[in-house]
Amino acid sequence: MRVLGIDCGSHVTGFGIIDSDERYHHLVVSGAIRLQPRKRFSERLLVIHQKVEQLISTYCPQIVAVEDQFYLSNFRSVLKLGQVKGAVILTAARAGIPIVEYSPLEIKSAVTGYGRAEKSQVQSMVEKLLRLATPPEPLDASDALALAICHVHTSATEFRLRRAVSAAATNQGGNS
Amino acid sequence: MRVLGIDCGSHVTGFGIIDSDERYHHLVVSGAIRLQPRKRFSERLLVIHQKVEQLISTYCPQIVAVEDQFYLSNFRSVLKLGQVKGAVILTAARAGIPIVEYSPLEIKSAVTGYGRAEKSQVQSMVEKLLRLATPPEPLDASDALALAICHVHTSATEFRLRRAVSAAATNQGGNS
Repeated sequence: MRVLGIDCGSHVTGFGIIDSDERYHHLVVSGAIRLQPRKRFSERLLVIHQKVEQLISTYCPQIVAVEDQFYLSNFRSVLKLGQVKGAVILTAARAGIPIVEYSPLEIKSAVTGYGRAEKSQVQSMVEKLLRLATPPEPLDASDALALAICHVHTSATEFRLRRAVSAAATNQGGNS
Repeated sequence: MRVLGIDCGSHVTGFGIIDSDERYHHLVVSGAIRLQPRKRFSERLLVIHQKVEQLISTYCPQIVAVEDQFYLSNFRSVLKLGQVKGAVILTAARAGIPIVEYSPLEIKSAVTGYGRAEKSQVQSMVEKLLRLATPPEPLDASDALALAICHVHTSATEFRLRRAVSAAATNQGGNS
């Protein structure tokens, strides 16, 4: 499974692609799209769109994972982040790629086992899980990789759960 | 001048295109994009994107006007509206069309002369200013047309102001 995680931000947007067979994750590429604050917001959205479009066409991810909720101090910041997220989701939708969303709690729990982990703890666990020599930089890229890992863990758990329910139903049918 | 106004909404997005020579405004097309609530949000963004892209290619507006600020009760609603706005702005930016933003106060003031006017008052003034036989429906379309009219009024005022300043500077230079 190849997953593209995107950590949306109106100044810096992190990205990270991993390949995974559920047990082992492998880093494909990661980095950050830095946006010039002086640029018009529409131009910033276009830069993000073009970079995500390029990542999709180059690396062909099967799914895109983004963060579900933003806890910010004011409406204007939420609105700007919403616009970036809208541009990212639209870019994936245009390419016909499904989009999944995870809350910060789900992401941190999946990667560190603790829903209130610090960004540096997430970064450290991402480094271990991907067996990297150094921590993924910047933190935005590490957060994007955490999103991708979160999706792999969650979908693997869901798959096992569905299989267990199906096996239980089959046994039930055989015993009745 | 041909202006496309878009009133962003996560359930209904209004649109309206007008032609204007500053004194007289003429309705080109207006309507609303109704989104199925059961559809995934990414699919809704794609529907909005495709409709706006179609409006741009069919009617070739010179500028796109959207609302600047959303005053809503909770972050989740702001985030969803932000995503719709991001999709609309990105669609215009992809087509190389400039985007302008106006606050609700600016829009209502420009159309009705009163910044706290009701939606029905805005609708009634849009009907008069465009010399229509019936009020533009639905309200989302009327709000989108108000946005377009607001841009025409604002840019005309700015143009006259610049011309007056330039004339005053020329006179000043001639008298010194």
